[in-house]
Amino acid sequence: MDLIKVSAHSRTAAVAGAIAGTYRDHGRAEIQAIGAGAVNQAIKAVVIAKGYLADEGKVIVLVPSLVEVDIDGEDRTAIRLSIEPAENAA
Amino acid sequence: MDLIKVSAHSRTAAVAGAIAGTYRDHGRAEIQAIGAGAVNQAIKAVVIAKGYLADEGKVIVLVPSLVEVDIDGEDRTAIRLSIEPAENAA
Repeated sequence: MDLIKVSAHSRTAAVAGAIAGTYRDHGRAEIQAIGAGAVNQAIKAVVIAKGYLADEGKVIVLVPSLVEVDIDGEDRTAIRLSIEPAENAA
Repeated sequence: MDLIKVSAHSRTAAVAGAIAGTYRDHGRAEIQAIGAGAVNQAIKAVVIAKGYLADEGKVIVLVPSLVEVDIDGEDRTAIRLSIEPAENAA
């Protein structure tokens, strides 16, 4: 399963499509965002994807965490958003 | 139950404390953020609160949505983050 990397310039509709597609194939999805603009785009995309999937009877929830990542040799803190089925989130 | 309003200048530790406290009292919490900086602070606070509550055996998940709010007579789109127990999220 591919990690969906979101930037401040990502289009929310495109990210939402990627989230919904990954979720349909794998039953979950993982998003990574670094910086406030990217996190904001990621959350908006999750809201859109949540609507797409709800129309198919799939209820998703979000589990956020922080991860340290290496970007061009620099340590950065990324926000990781796991999209999971509501019933499995525990 | 009070809505926890987060701004770009909110301290994440203070917001995390408010989230955990509200969750302990009510079994859920609602956060509102407008703008990328506020959403980023809110998500970081949720990660911290999630850790506090996990130490008490409480597993939380996040359900994001968009809401239209009136700020000084102007329509703005806010991000609403519902913090819910993992087992009830469906």
